[in-house]
Amino acid sequence: MKNLCHSGLPQCVTLAELGCSSGPNALLPIAEMVEIIVDKLSHDELLNNNNNNNKKKPINVQVFLNDLVGNDFNNVFKLLPSFYEQLERKKGQVSCFVGAVPGSFHGRLFPQHCVHLVHSSYSLHWLSQVPKGLVTESGLPLNKGNIYIAKTSPPSVHEAYLDQFQKDFTNFLSMRCEEMVDFGSLVLTFICKNDEDDGCDFWELLGITMNDMVIEGMIEETKLDNFNLPLYAPSIKEIKQIIKNEGSFKILQLETFKLKWDSNMANHGEKEEKILFDEKSRAVYVAGNMRAVQEPILVDHFGEEIMDDLFERFGAKAIEYMENCGKGIINNVVLSLSKMN
Amino acid sequence: MKNLCHSGLPQCVTLAELGCSSGPNALLPIAEMVEIIVDKLSHDELLNNNNNNNKKKPINVQVFLNDLVGNDFNNVFKLLPSFYEQLERKKGQVSCFVGAVPGSFHGRLFPQHCVHLVHSSYSLHWLSQVPKGLVTESGLPLNKGNIYIAKTSPPSVHEAYLDQFQKDFTNFLSMRCEEMVDFGSLVLTFICKNDEDDGCDFWELLGITMNDMVIEGMIEETKLDNFNLPLYAPSIKEIKQIIKNEGSFKILQLETFKLKWDSNMANHGEKEEKILFDEKSRAVYVAGNMRAVQEPILVDHFGEEIMDDLFERFGAKAIEYMENCGKGIINNVVLSLSKMN
Repeated sequence: MKNLCHSGLPQCVTLAELGCSSGPNALLPIAEMVEIIVDKLSHDELLNNNNNNNKKKPINVQVFLNDLVGNDFNNVFKLLPSFYEQLERKKGQVSCFVGAVPGSFHGRLFPQHCVHLVHSSYSLHWLSQVPKGLVTESGLPLNKGNIYIAKTSPPSVHEAYLDQFQKDFTNFLSMRCEEMVDFGSLVLTFICKNDEDDGCDFWELLGITMNDMVIEGMIEETKLDNFNLPLYAPSIKEIKQIIKNEGSFKILQLETFKLKWDSNMANHGEKEEKILFDEKSRAVYVAGNMRAVQEPILVDHFGEEIMDDLFERFGAKAIEYMENCGKGIINNVVLSLSKMN
Repeated sequence: MKNLCHSGLPQCVTLAELGCSSGPNALLPIAEMVEIIVDKLSHDELLNNNNNNNKKKPINVQVFLNDLVGNDFNNVFKLLPSFYEQLERKKGQVSCFVGAVPGSFHGRLFPQHCVHLVHSSYSLHWLSQVPKGLVTESGLPLNKGNIYIAKTSPPSVHEAYLDQFQKDFTNFLSMRCEEMVDFGSLVLTFICKNDEDDGCDFWELLGITMNDMVIEGMIEETKLDNFNLPLYAPSIKEIKQIIKNEGSFKILQLETFKLKWDSNMANHGEKEEKILFDEKSRAVYVAGNMRAVQEPILVDHFGEEIMDDLFERFGAKAIEYMENCGKGIINNVVLSLSKMN
């Protein structure tokens, strides 16, 4: 991330964290960005002013946290006193002002040309709406028995999802272009596909679990047929094509990385040595991760009652799948883009 | 308020609403300020461009709502969708972006030189802390039986309150001076004294009510003796003196107005004709207003249990006082200041 500061620092740097959510990690990316800015500043000072004893003024960093209007911002704001306390040791180098701008990042959030760096982590694969074109003209569901693109989905379902993602991501880039200063940086991490033919088996498997529950009469068949997740994991080729067609940003860096569904599990233990977890606790962990993200949207459509059962089944199925197929990977992309002037 | 826009409008105007609270009125001042900006814009266009058919770009207005970190901002954010909807009819004239910056306005909230207009309504009479100097060196309370400056308070109590207000208001002006652009406007409404010798009988009467409850054994005497409200209603002379001594702002306008304790009561009815309310409903109304503002701080010190009783007694006492003494007025000041460059 250090190359984001390549073009020198203005007196006040404005950062935006899009899709900050409300958990205890909401301020972590901010803290990291401030750290980088302070490092860059010290480095520049060493290079340029090593014979100059003039005391430099602290740099102003204005930070805006963003998520939907319904996000629990109160919970994030509670973290601010300790965040500011930790910054105290950088007093004299940086003055940081944290605020929030609620609203959808599919629309405009900021005035023109005022943001220097936009960061967004695990939000861009969310679509602005469920894709149109998932039902026939006479209203029949095209993605029967699935909740996302699955091996049994017809090609038109994939086309509908890709079409929506193209619209949303193009729009996202255009909005940010309006808001950002020239040469401003956009750093995005989100879920992607491994290759063109790959789906996203994490979401597909959730659909399979729900289909089992339809067969057992626990979920109404039409309810499942009419539900599709407003998410899309694009391929790298699709991402590059959209950025090129939209035309406002240049790709500085693009990297992919893989995470096993249970890959962060050891971090939750306190010991450093490798811990072997049993199947049951791995199932609980994987299901918990899925639940934390998907539950609100599922509850809206299917109700609260089936959730415990659904995620218990999903956890077991996920571990079985990992063991038997040697799979269970989430593919991720991290992109650093620079606004062209 | 129209004269705030005297020096022309920049492409993006930044407004700050300090002490916005979390009620349904939190966005009202913002809506009014945006209205004035759009009016000013239309007026300027008529004056300067009446022969010019070039379509003007909409002006960007960035708004920051502020209150303490513990304020219920989620509740304010819920009002945003309908606020933006109402602005839709001004589309093409104004693009408005609303955010929040939590924190105490006794400290810095924004980077340097970025805010054009600061508005604050009924917040500036809150002190940053209970004044020091309300106890003797050996720890004895100086303001025994009172919770604010009262007729029975020794002069040192008034001095301690004035001293704290001087520090806080001076500091407030210096902080805002750092944050505001040259010629930026500061519009403040808060509670003041009628004349130099006046107290604030609204708060004094609450103290008298609590003293009654001490006598009846419902409140511990030492608990009352150790409690003082962190509020101060300054005189106009004091306000002018502090502004002059601090030196960053020029007073453009200063007006005072009086509100009877039950003056807005009729607005809560739906009919326009003058309604005569009975004593009981007036007592409930006056006590309700006091309770809405003072309850949290009182609960912290005295506990939840006595609140219903306290405010019922206070309401009755307030109406009796209004009837018998012909008093029961809150004095307010509204100030428009301009930052000197």
